[in-house]
Amino acid sequence: MTDHAPPTSADPVALARALIECPSVTPEEGGALAFLEGLLAPKGFDVDRPVFSQKGTPDVENLFAAIGKGERHLVFAGHTDVVPPGTLTSWRHPPFSGAIENGVLYGRGAVDMKGGIAAFLAAVLDFVAERGADFGGRISLLITGDEEGPSINGTAKLLKWADERGERFSAAIVGEPTNPSALGDQIKIGRRGSLSGEVSIRGHQGHVAYPHLADNPVRALGPLLAALMDPPLDAGTENFQPSNLEVTSVETDTKVFNVIPARADVRFNVRFNDLWTPETLKAEIAARVERARAMPSLRREGLAPVDLRLTYQPVVSDVFITHSPDLVEGLANAVEAVTGRRPELGTGGGTSDARFIKDYCPVVEFGLVGDTMHQIDERVPLADLVTLGRIYRRFLDDYFS
Amino acid sequence: MTDHAPPTSADPVALARALIECPSVTPEEGGALAFLEGLLAPKGFDVDRPVFSQKGTPDVENLFAAIGKGERHLVFAGHTDVVPPGTLTSWRHPPFSGAIENGVLYGRGAVDMKGGIAAFLAAVLDFVAERGADFGGRISLLITGDEEGPSINGTAKLLKWADERGERFSAAIVGEPTNPSALGDQIKIGRRGSLSGEVSIRGHQGHVAYPHLADNPVRALGPLLAALMDPPLDAGTENFQPSNLEVTSVETDTKVFNVIPARADVRFNVRFNDLWTPETLKAEIAARVERARAMPSLRREGLAPVDLRLTYQPVVSDVFITHSPDLVEGLANAVEAVTGRRPELGTGGGTSDARFIKDYCPVVEFGLVGDTMHQIDERVPLADLVTLGRIYRRFLDDYFS
Ligand SMILES: [Zn+2]
Ligand SMILES: [Zn+2]
Repeated sequence: MTDHAPPTSADPVALARALIECPSVTPEEGGALAFLEGLLAPKGFDVDRPVFSQKGTPDVENLFAAIGKGERHLVFAGHTDVVPPGTLTSWRHPPFSGAIENGVLYGRGAVDMKGGIAAFLAAVLDFVAERGADFGGRISLLITGDEEGPSINGTAKLLKWADERGERFSAAIVGEPTNPSALGDQIKIGRRGSLSGEVSIRGHQGHVAYPHLADNPVRALGPLLAALMDPPLDAGTENFQPSNLEVTSVETDTKVFNVIPARADVRFNVRFNDLWTPETLKAEIAARVERARAMPSLRREGLAPVDLRLTYQPVVSDVFITHSPDLVEGLANAVEAVTGRRPELGTGGGTSDARFIKDYCPVVEFGLVGDTMHQIDERVPLADLVTLGRIYRRFLDDYFS
Repeated sequence: MTDHAPPTSADPVALARALIECPSVTPEEGGALAFLEGLLAPKGFDVDRPVFSQKGTPDVENLFAAIGKGERHLVFAGHTDVVPPGTLTSWRHPPFSGAIENGVLYGRGAVDMKGGIAAFLAAVLDFVAERGADFGGRISLLITGDEEGPSINGTAKLLKWADERGERFSAAIVGEPTNPSALGDQIKIGRRGSLSGEVSIRGHQGHVAYPHLADNPVRALGPLLAALMDPPLDAGTENFQPSNLEVTSVETDTKVFNVIPARADVRFNVRFNDLWTPETLKAEIAARVERARAMPSLRREGLAPVDLRLTYQPVVSDVFITHSPDLVEGLANAVEAVTGRRPELGTGGGTSDARFIKDYCPVVEFGLVGDTMHQIDERVPLADLVTLGRIYRRFLDDYFS
C-alpha cells in the first residue's frame, strides 16, 4: 500500500514514525508537540502551545492549531502522550524507534494514538494544500499531552482556553482507536458515564480473643457487597450496554491475624448508561447502602447499628450520546466509501477526552484498530494508517463541500 | 498495706519497682534478667541465662533459676518483656519510673507481668529463707524476654532447653494477670486453641470499563465470608466459651477505582474449644470453603469456577485444660484462704505461654488484675502485690507440706 502513498509531509506513515520517535510518556512532551508546531506553522496554521498547571499534578504542554474561517468549525482532537513502554527488552523493536517490519509499524503510541494523529494530520494537510486556507470553514487540531495521565491539565483546560478566545466548534472527531478488530468496525458516538465512590464500614478494633469487646466491620462486608452488586442496575438500552458496578477494592485497616480491624473500606466504580444521571445513580447507591444497613444480620446485641459511610470521588463523567447526522452519518458514509464497510455506532468501553468535548460540540471517535494499545509490541499496519487518512480526508471533503 | 510489709528483698513492691525501672520492651532485656540473676544467685539458686536465636527473629535472653531437690518440682513462669509504652507524654507518671501515688504503683509491666513476677519472687524468697534449700522439693523460675513478641525464642525453647538438662516439672503456675476485676476472681485452667489461616480468591485483573475481560475476585467475597462465619462453630462446652472465627483482614491487590483486582485475600483466626482438634477444625473450614466455591452465584458464564486457595499459618495452639487437683484445687484453696473468695476456673481470653508449658506438666495461670494491661497508665495497687505474694506463699506451703 505505501508504495502508492508519496513520501511527502502528508504521508501518514512518515508522520506516525516521527511522532513515535518522540518519547512522550505522560507528562513528558518528548518533542512531539514541537514536531507538530514545526510542521503546521509554516503551512499557515495559527499554533499555540499553552501549558496548564494544577497543584498536585505535573505541568502539561498542549497544542492548539487552527486554519481557515467560517461557520463550520471542525476539530480533530487527540493526545501525543503515551503510556510507559514497560519492559524494553520485551519489545520486538525498541518502542520509540519507529521500526517497520513486513509492512507493520511498531512503537508505543502506534495506535493510541500517534497513528490516529498522523492520519488526521495527513488528511488536513492534503486538504489545505488542495483547497487553500480560504476553504470556507475552519479546522482546528486540539492536541494534549495529558490523556493517559490525570487528564487534569489537558483537554478540559484546553477547551476552556479555546472557548475563552472565542473559538466555537461545530463538530469534533477524536482519533482514538475505536475498531475492535478491523478498520471500519465501529464509530463511537457516546460513552457511558463513570462514577466512583467508597463505602467505609466503621467498627471497633480489638483482639481476636475478645471479640465481645470489639465490633468487627467485616460482619457488614458480605451484606454490603451483595446490596451493591445485586440486582443488576439495568439491562442496557438501545444505544448502551447495561450499567455495571464493579467493586475495585476492599481493604481492612489491619492486616494481621490477631487483631479485629476497626474499619473496612469498599471502593467501587459504576459505568452507567442513559437510564441514569449522576444524581439518580447516587440515590440508587445510597438506597442500596441503606438496604445493607437495615439487614437484621448486621445487628448484634449490645452493638449500635453498623456505621456505613458513603462518599464519592469528585470527578464524575456523565453519560452522553451524539445524534448530529452531519457528524455521525457523515463519518459513517466516509468510512463506508473508503472501506466498503458500514461501521456500527458504539458506546462501549472506557472514557476518553470526548467526555470533555461533548460539552462544547457534537463529538464522535474514530481511529485505528485498538487491539495492541497499551501493550508490548503496540503496532499498526502501514495500510491502516493510509486508509484512515483517506477516511478523514473523505470526511473533510464532504463536511466542507 | 505497705506499712505492714517490711522493705526487704522479699518485698513484692520493691521487687516490682526494680523490675519496672528496667526498660525491657521486647526484645530488649533492659536489665530485668540481670536484676533477677543478681537477686537469686546469692541466695543459692542455680541461675542460667540462655540466649535463643532463630533466623528472621531477634535474639532473646531468658532466665532459668532453680533451687532444691525432690520429686515435686514447681515452676513459676513469666516474662519480663513488656509491650511498648506508647505516647510517653500520655502517662501520668513516666512508664519506667516505678512511681507510686496514693498506694498505686504505675508503670509498663505493673500487672503484665513484672508485678506477678515480683509477687512469686517474694513468695519463693520468703519460703526458701524459712525452709532452707533442702525443703524436700524443687522450685524453678522460668522467665523469658519473648512473650509479647514472636514467642519463638522464649518459653518454648527454654522448656526444651530445661528438659534436655533433665529438669522434670510436676506443676507450673504462670503469673499472668487473670483476674477481670478483683484479685481472687479467676484462675485460668486452660485456654482455647488458636488457628490462623488465609483464603486467597484468585481472579483476573482488568479495567472497570471492560468487566467481561476480567474476573473480579470480589464476586466470591460475600459468599466466602458468609460460609466462613455462619453458622457458629459450636455453642461452647462445660469448660469453654464457644469456638469463634473472626475475619481479621480482607485485602484486594489493587486499591484504585478503575482497575478490577486480580486477587482478594481473607485472613482469619479461630479460637477453638475442646470440641475440636486442629485437624477436625481444618476439615470444617475446608468444607466451608468448598461450600462457598459451590455456590451458584459464584459461577459466571465463560469463567472457570472460582479459584479459592486455603492455607494456614504454621503456628497452631491446641486447646488444653488442666485437671490436676494438686495444682488447681491447691491454688484455689490458697486464693480462698488469703482473699476469702473462691476463684472461678476459667479458660477464656487469649493465649499465653501456658500453651507451651502444658506439654511438660499441668499448668494454671493466676496473677494480678488485668484491666490496665497494655494500656497507658498500666498500674497496680500495692495491696494487690502483697496479697498475690501471700497467695503464692500459701500455695508453696501447702504444695511442699
Ligand atoms: Zn488514547
Ligand atoms: Zn503477659
